[in-house]
Amino acid sequence: MNLILLAPEDIEDRRQARVRDPRRLRHLREVHRATIGDRLTLGIQGGGIGRGELVALDDEEACFTLDAMDQPPPPPLPVHLVLALPRPRMLARSLEHVTALGVKQITLLHSRRVEKSYWQSPELGEQKIRDHLVLGLEQSRDTVMPEVSLARGFRPFVEERLPGLLAERQGLLAHPGMPSPCPRGIDRPTLLIVGPEGGFIPHEVERLLDAGCQGIHLGPRILRVETAVVALLARLF
Amino acid sequence: MNLILLAPEDIEDRRQARVRDPRRLRHLREVHRATIGDRLTLGIQGGGIGRGELVALDDEEACFTLDAMDQPPPPPLPVHLVLALPRPRMLARSLEHVTALGVKQITLLHSRRVEKSYWQSPELGEQKIRDHLVLGLEQSRDTVMPEVSLARGFRPFVEERLPGLLAERQGLLAHPGMPSPCPRGIDRPTLLIVGPEGGFIPHEVERLLDAGCQGIHLGPRILRVETAVVALLARLF
Repeated sequence: MNLILLAPEDIEDRRQARVRDPRRLRHLREVHRATIGDRLTLGIQGGGIGRGELVALDDEEACFTLDAMDQPPPPPLPVHLVLALPRPRMLARSLEHVTALGVKQITLLHSRRVEKSYWQSPELGEQKIRDHLVLGLEQSRDTVMPEVSLARGFRPFVEERLPGLLAERQGLLAHPGMPSPCPRGIDRPTLLIVGPEGGFIPHEVERLLDAGCQGIHLGPRILRVETAVVALLARLF
Repeated sequence: MNLILLAPEDIEDRRQARVRDPRRLRHLREVHRATIGDRLTLGIQGGGIGRGELVALDDEEACFTLDAMDQPPPPPLPVHLVLALPRPRMLARSLEHVTALGVKQITLLHSRRVEKSYWQSPELGEQKIRDHLVLGLEQSRDTVMPEVSLARGFRPFVEERLPGLLAERQGLLAHPGMPSPCPRGIDRPTLLIVGPEGGFIPHEVERLLDAGCQGIHLGPRILRVETAVVALLARLF
């Protein structure tokens, strides 16, 4: 927790913040070993970053007096990430990784090789997803919550949502065996599509290329989704 | 398991291989759903890759008849990775990530912010480390086992081992706040040093820079070690 992320309900009159949830209280006590008078980094969800002084700490709450919260969060990546829904544990870690790297739009997509049971996982609950996003923001000192949407059908996604997404972005389909190596150091708005373990099936690849995506690869090595997605983002941006 | 990695003891007269360990037998049965006559990708540890036909499968062993095992493994990365010893679970995942990405030399280093207890973890046992390396190789269809060495003292490492390592490699110290952004797409032999959670202390940074390392950063975001190490490798090579 390199930043204490304050939700609107944590803040009173812009000068005082109270943190009451057990996870953060425990972290303050056990990891930060915080004591009264300590100055820590805080951020307002969707807003600025600054320092605050810990003025009270007990079993129920930690109270901070805030300085001007006027530093901007780190810049986001210009990417909308479309990720074939990974298995639940991999999803959790991937959400944390990509949030920490600065992804702000995430769509979780069904495809043939996504096991149907993954869509029933408790990890897809709104609060669970939010928990992982918050961990990613706290890690990277960011305040801007990513938006996560679910696309439970491959064909409706391709036919109804993809054209709109590609109107303002270049589309890159990361898939082993595609002709072009992953570009490096780009800054234009990009839609990055990453398949499931085992990859998209040929028909899905064809549909995505037909829709205007460019196929890219990371070399001959087959990577786990959570490794691949970090490697792609780090190489692209 | 995108490749079945054969240890020397798995192979008989270069034409037959037997896999006997429960993990791989289970994987063959439950994930590959392998049946007699299936042709799968196998690799000889430290050697070539080819296909083999499953000719027998029971509770005790899977027997393959091998084709010519004459395809080379994917190229390694020209990097020696020096990683401040992460906490055990992060170590396990980091070893798998970096092995899958093609790192062949790994040194786990002590530094001030590495908790001493981490050096007592069972995850540092030779067999445990090997297990994670094998998972990384199986994932990325590689056969060449990385070498892992332990440097239990920061100062002896810097004084006794680092000069030799830097004689043939450029040294890059990845640390937040360093002056240069991480280079992109290099191919020269590199020693990449990555600190612990919380970072190297200023004195350690100074020692590494004095030894000839160049300080690089990945931007304003603070990343977890396992995210940072994948991002660095993907951006560098």
